[in-house]
Amino acid sequence: MEAFITLLTNNSYASGALVLGHSLRASQTTKQLAILITAQVSRPIRDKLANVYDAVIEIGEIDSHSKANLELLGRPELGITLTKIHVFNQTQYSKVIFLDADTLVLRNIDELFDTAANGAIDDKDRNKRFAAAPDAGWPDCFNSGVFVCRPTFEDYQGLIDMANQEGTFDGGDQGLLNSYFGGWSRGEASNRLPFVYNTTPTAVYSYAPAFQQNRDRLAVVHFIGAFKPWQWLRFADGTVFPRNTSSTDSIELVQQWWNVYDKYVGGKPSDIHEVTHGYD
Amino acid sequence: MEAFITLLTNNSYASGALVLGHSLRASQTTKQLAILITAQVSRPIRDKLANVYDAVIEIGEIDSHSKANLELLGRPELGITLTKIHVFNQTQYSKVIFLDADTLVLRNIDELFDTAANGAIDDKDRNKRFAAAPDAGWPDCFNSGVFVCRPTFEDYQGLIDMANQEGTFDGGDQGLLNSYFGGWSRGEASNRLPFVYNTTPTAVYSYAPAFQQNRDRLAVVHFIGAFKPWQWLRFADGTVFPRNTSSTDSIELVQQWWNVYDKYVGGKPSDIHEVTHGYD
Ligand SMILES: O=c1ccn([C@@H]2O[C@H](COP(=O)(O)OP(=O)(O)O)[C@@H](O)[C@H]2O)c(=O)[nH]1
Ligand SMILES: O=c1ccn([C@@H]2O[C@H](COP(=O)(O)OP(=O)(O)O)[C@@H](O)[C@H]2O)c(=O)[nH]1
Ligand SMILES: [Mn+2]
Ligand SMILES: [Mn+2]
Repeated sequence: MEAFITLLTNNSYASGALVLGHSLRASQTTKQLAILITAQVSRPIRDKLANVYDAVIEIGEIDSHSKANLELLGRPELGITLTKIHVFNQTQYSKVIFLDADTLVLRNIDELFDTAANGAIDDKDRNKRFAAAPDAGWPDCFNSGVFVCRPTFEDYQGLIDMANQEGTFDGGDQGLLNSYFGGWSRGEASNRLPFVYNTTPTAVYSYAPAFQQNRDRLAVVHFIGAFKPWQWLRFADGTVFPRNTSSTDSIELVQQWWNVYDKYVGGKPSDIHEVTHGYD
Repeated sequence: MEAFITLLTNNSYASGALVLGHSLRASQTTKQLAILITAQVSRPIRDKLANVYDAVIEIGEIDSHSKANLELLGRPELGITLTKIHVFNQTQYSKVIFLDADTLVLRNIDELFDTAANGAIDDKDRNKRFAAAPDAGWPDCFNSGVFVCRPTFEDYQGLIDMANQEGTFDGGDQGLLNSYFGGWSRGEASNRLPFVYNTTPTAVYSYAPAFQQNRDRLAVVHFIGAFKPWQWLRFADGTVFPRNTSSTDSIELVQQWWNVYDKYVGGKPSDIHEVTHGYD
């Protein structure tokens, strides 16, 4: 079984996860949709998620059935980093496309299940079962907001061990994953996803003609950074309020996110996000 | 014979070309240093260039011994784009590392002559004789400020023909070269130069931990954009004046450029750049 998986570690990204799920459904994917959540995610949000995701899977912040995890108890700062690593423990799926909750799928991308990460789960070269797109900040690193992998307990364990022993050079999962799948930028082309599968709106400004040339080919937009689409203000007619930006294209991408929100989710993100445990 | 080649289309980048040349000499390269200049470059600057470059080669803005070039006379806007293309016409060299005049070499990079662009000059797959590093703006494009190639008249002609027929999607040489060497991002790893061979100081901000992790491996810094190192203000003690920037690392890179300038060039850039034809 193959699945798209995303992650929600708290209520505050819930509208992102909902929009992503609905954008995947709208793409008419034939694959399973799964979401990993932590105990912090409230009951009303879980119910909404269950309407769009086939599987809502609660994961522990530290997974106690792993010996290595116990050692981590002394390093609580790695807990959040390791949350995304649970994707590699979802061995009920033969192949997974992981998408951050701040991504938006613009078209059907099921083809990636066939074209990327085709290595065997016991291949000595672990990079053969992993694929990701370049990070615009340092393009010899991949961005960990979108990746294709074949979950195996060995990689899950290997990642935890590495976190334990070396930590992560950027303090997050992206540094850890880049160390674990080191040599990605020198590896086979099939393990490098085209940038259209993880396009950051920053590209609109930083190389506008290339963005324009690829506009119709964009597959996944990734709203990296501190300021997420659900935090943008909107005018009464639903159009987004341009803020800290002069480019109409970046606004256009945020507007696309809101169009999905309005069509399938509705209401105000703050009403969703501020539902707390108290209401359970 | 193998050579480093840069380009100077007018006087205003002269201190860049001088610093680059001296940084290459300081790297103790065993290769030839060549610079392509246009008629606009003044005599005193040519003399300074001849002190550091083995070959100072004047190129025409439109090269008249090519039939296709004549057709270009109707499209004068492509003239500047095509200037860099003259690198492919320098067939006196078997392999070339091209460097923009706004780059600074931090260590010996002669190894690239061995490791990159090893295809035959008549290989059907032209990408085999070309290598470049990703552009941080749209990382499936390469940045054309640093590349390795094997000059052939066929590619020179092919680039001119393509410019003629299709133009260039970004109005410059980078768009044209990316179209001509299309599929670069999906090609073999040996044709992708590591980002440390063409590091843009923007990386300091956009993914600081990755920059720090690679700080000691940096080989070539490329000061892209409108504001070049020679335009920075300096305090009386020679330290650069921080401007529009909050990161000390970017300042550090500009300071490194000035250290080479002070050591080997001297005086003020404006004294070099403002030498005009009138003084010839
Ligand atoms: O408060 C948070 C922070 C992160 N995440 C999850 O972790 C991912 C990575 O974080 P983020 O997207 O904010 O990082 P960026 O892509 O901006 O580097 C998110 O997309 C979510 O899936 C979450 O659920 N709640
Ligand atoms: O006025 C100019 C503009 C450009 N160039 C040459 O063309 C290259 C490409 O231009 P630039 O580096 O300014 O482009 P960027 O790297 O900022 O995109 C320069 O490095 C120089 O070699 C030049 O000699 N004079
Ligand atoms: Mn993200
Ligand atoms: Mn440049």
